[in-house]
Amino acid sequence: MLTHLGDKWTILVILLLAQTPGNRLRFSGIKRGVAGISQRMLTLTLRMLERNGLVVRHYFAEVPPRVEYELSLMGKGMLPPLEFFAQWIGENWPAMEAARREYDARSGQ
Amino acid sequence: MLTHLGDKWTILVILLLAQTPGNRLRFSGIKRGVAGISQRMLTLTLRMLERNGLVVRHYFAEVPPRVEYELSLMGKGMLPPLEFFAQWIGENWPAMEAARREYDARSGQ
Repeated sequence: MLTHLGDKWTILVILLLAQTPGNRLRFSGIKRGVAGISQRMLTLTLRMLERNGLVVRHYFAEVPPRVEYELSLMGKGMLPPLEFFAQWIGENWPAMEAARREYDARSGQ
Repeated sequence: MLTHLGDKWTILVILLLAQTPGNRLRFSGIKRGVAGISQRMLTLTLRMLERNGLVVRHYFAEVPPRVEYELSLMGKGMLPPLEFFAQWIGENWPAMEAARREYDARSGQ
């Protein structure tokens, strides 16, 4: 479980829904909003989020059927630790990049 | 990068080193302390942590050579957001488990 929660796509989908009015979007809207995510990865990510109660799937029996994904109350509760984590990464990104350059130079990569 | 940082093994290795006096251990000590991690996964995780400056690798040219891995200052700086994230997971674990049971029952798994 911990493996998925810290996963890049999971974090980006949750942050996107959190920043969207009403915290809900259709599949295509989420795909457009998360750069680089594949159809398959988004399907798996949304299924994992729904299964863990972090996202609610709304199905409208229209023609064609409409599906929307909404950040649940528990999903919203995950935002503070996620934002704290994302903030730490943002602040330390330059130092980590410098460490990577030094490591690669040392190991001749 | 974000993908690795939130990875279960990365989090468990950092938390183990953080709880160890001197924040440093040998490879075998880390492997014993992180249940279920394979030799290969620990090697990859430690290399990623070292490459990103979160862990420092100390090499002692003894016979046989000795290697210790130490949580760096930046690595220690990651603890507050990690602990906050781990705390959130701990608090919400029962609700997520209940959601999973309900989802699995609904989808006949």
